[in-house]
Amino acid sequence: MTAQLILLRHGESAWNAKNLFTGWVDVDLNDKGAAEAERGGELLVENGLLPDVVHTSLLRRAIRTSQIALDRADRHWIPVKRSWRLNERHYGALQGKDKAATLAEFGEQQFMIWRRSYDVPPPPIADDDEFANFADPRYADLPPEARPRTECLKDVLARALPYWYDQIVPDLRLGRTVLVAAHGNSLRAIVKHLDRMSDEAVVGLNIPTGIPLLYELDEDLAPVTAGGRYLDPEAAAASIEAVKNQGKK
Amino acid sequence: MTAQLILLRHGESAWNAKNLFTGWVDVDLNDKGAAEAERGGELLVENGLLPDVVHTSLLRRAIRTSQIALDRADRHWIPVKRSWRLNERHYGALQGKDKAATLAEFGEQQFMIWRRSYDVPPPPIADDDEFANFADPRYADLPPEARPRTECLKDVLARALPYWYDQIVPDLRLGRTVLVAAHGNSLRAIVKHLDRMSDEAVVGLNIPTGIPLLYELDEDLAPVTAGGRYLDPEAAAASIEAVKNQGKK
Repeated sequence: MTAQLILLRHGESAWNAKNLFTGWVDVDLNDKGAAEAERGGELLVENGLLPDVVHTSLLRRAIRTSQIALDRADRHWIPVKRSWRLNERHYGALQGKDKAATLAEFGEQQFMIWRRSYDVPPPPIADDDEFANFADPRYADLPPEARPRTECLKDVLARALPYWYDQIVPDLRLGRTVLVAAHGNSLRAIVKHLDRMSDEAVVGLNIPTGIPLLYELDEDLAPVTAGGRYLDPEAAAASIEAVKNQGKK
Repeated sequence: MTAQLILLRHGESAWNAKNLFTGWVDVDLNDKGAAEAERGGELLVENGLLPDVVHTSLLRRAIRTSQIALDRADRHWIPVKRSWRLNERHYGALQGKDKAATLAEFGEQQFMIWRRSYDVPPPPIADDDEFANFADPRYADLPPEARPRTECLKDVLARALPYWYDQIVPDLRLGRTVLVAAHGNSLRAIVKHLDRMSDEAVVGLNIPTGIPLLYELDEDLAPVTAGGRYLDPEAAAASIEAVKNQGKK
């Protein structure tokens, strides 16, 4: 029996719409994002994909996306697991900054390194940054040295992989259909791992919002088809184009 | 240290508003019910009660109530546990029936026995009843003999108590603030157990919708104050009156 893994990136948030770096700031979905989540649930139903368990980050935009999509798919009652290890990449000092203004201030080369390089993180967030929020109770169990102040994609993969092996893989091994509702970069990290993408190749990988990405996995949990399959391939292609142009408006 | 237990009955559902027996039928909240859940979350915030973990039934009206209240209280990210053992009482053959019509057909004495007696269940649901729904995947792990066809409050207590001891008590013992988002009768069962109410006394117990009921528990998990404390006592008193008059309209 092959295992079914469904990856779902949250719909548009208030800060996506305002073109701000978000990272660990806990911004809510906007109405468009809620509609995307609803459509994600419809796509699950249309494809007969019924998750048995859901894994989410600790951030509201991923949690609400999972709740809306699962409610739409009549799977609101399935077990839920959450972890900071599925959070969006911590954007360090860039959190809350306007993407276009950052591009203008630092130039396209630096901007693209921070946004897309595999192993160069943005400057770390300062203690007194308004978005540092080190007192957030959801991370209270994390000692300071384990709590990111900035991350590159490589860092995200390093902290997501233990969760993959310890929490998601066991559910897949039980034959469950597993939904992971998370973020652009935590999902890019998982896809890089699944598809054994090189550090260079992952730089060009974009994952669209709100469109479930199905991976059928073989007995070694390797993808039967590299890259998986978006449940709405045309919308996925259009969305990937739009994401590529972020920060350029 | 005393433990904090918060009981929250779901807000009004579409079938509450239509005065139908609901039981295990998975009816959604209506707009009033969603607003009640939001208010429940506000009351948690106003009282500085921040749940560390939430337990819900497998029914949408309790699940959504918990999601809306916790989102309002900025506690959307806490761990979630669910069980059919927190479901509403199974109303047997009465599910989907109009309460006023049932009262008229069977008379007040029989009606009140079914609604409020401690140990007399309604007639069991038939295999071909449109609301029997024995194929529901959320109960697929329950062998037929463990799946209720009708329940009295005594039955609800018998199936809720194992969950209380095995899942809720361990969270309370860890010093967590525990939210239980459930139903009129599963919460009456828990309150009967906590307050050591007699079989006769519990018949007169009503729990209002959407108003968190706080129990501070001592080292033996006995209530410091019998009956706990509603976070909005005046609204609770008014709501209890309204519930008493259900079926009499």
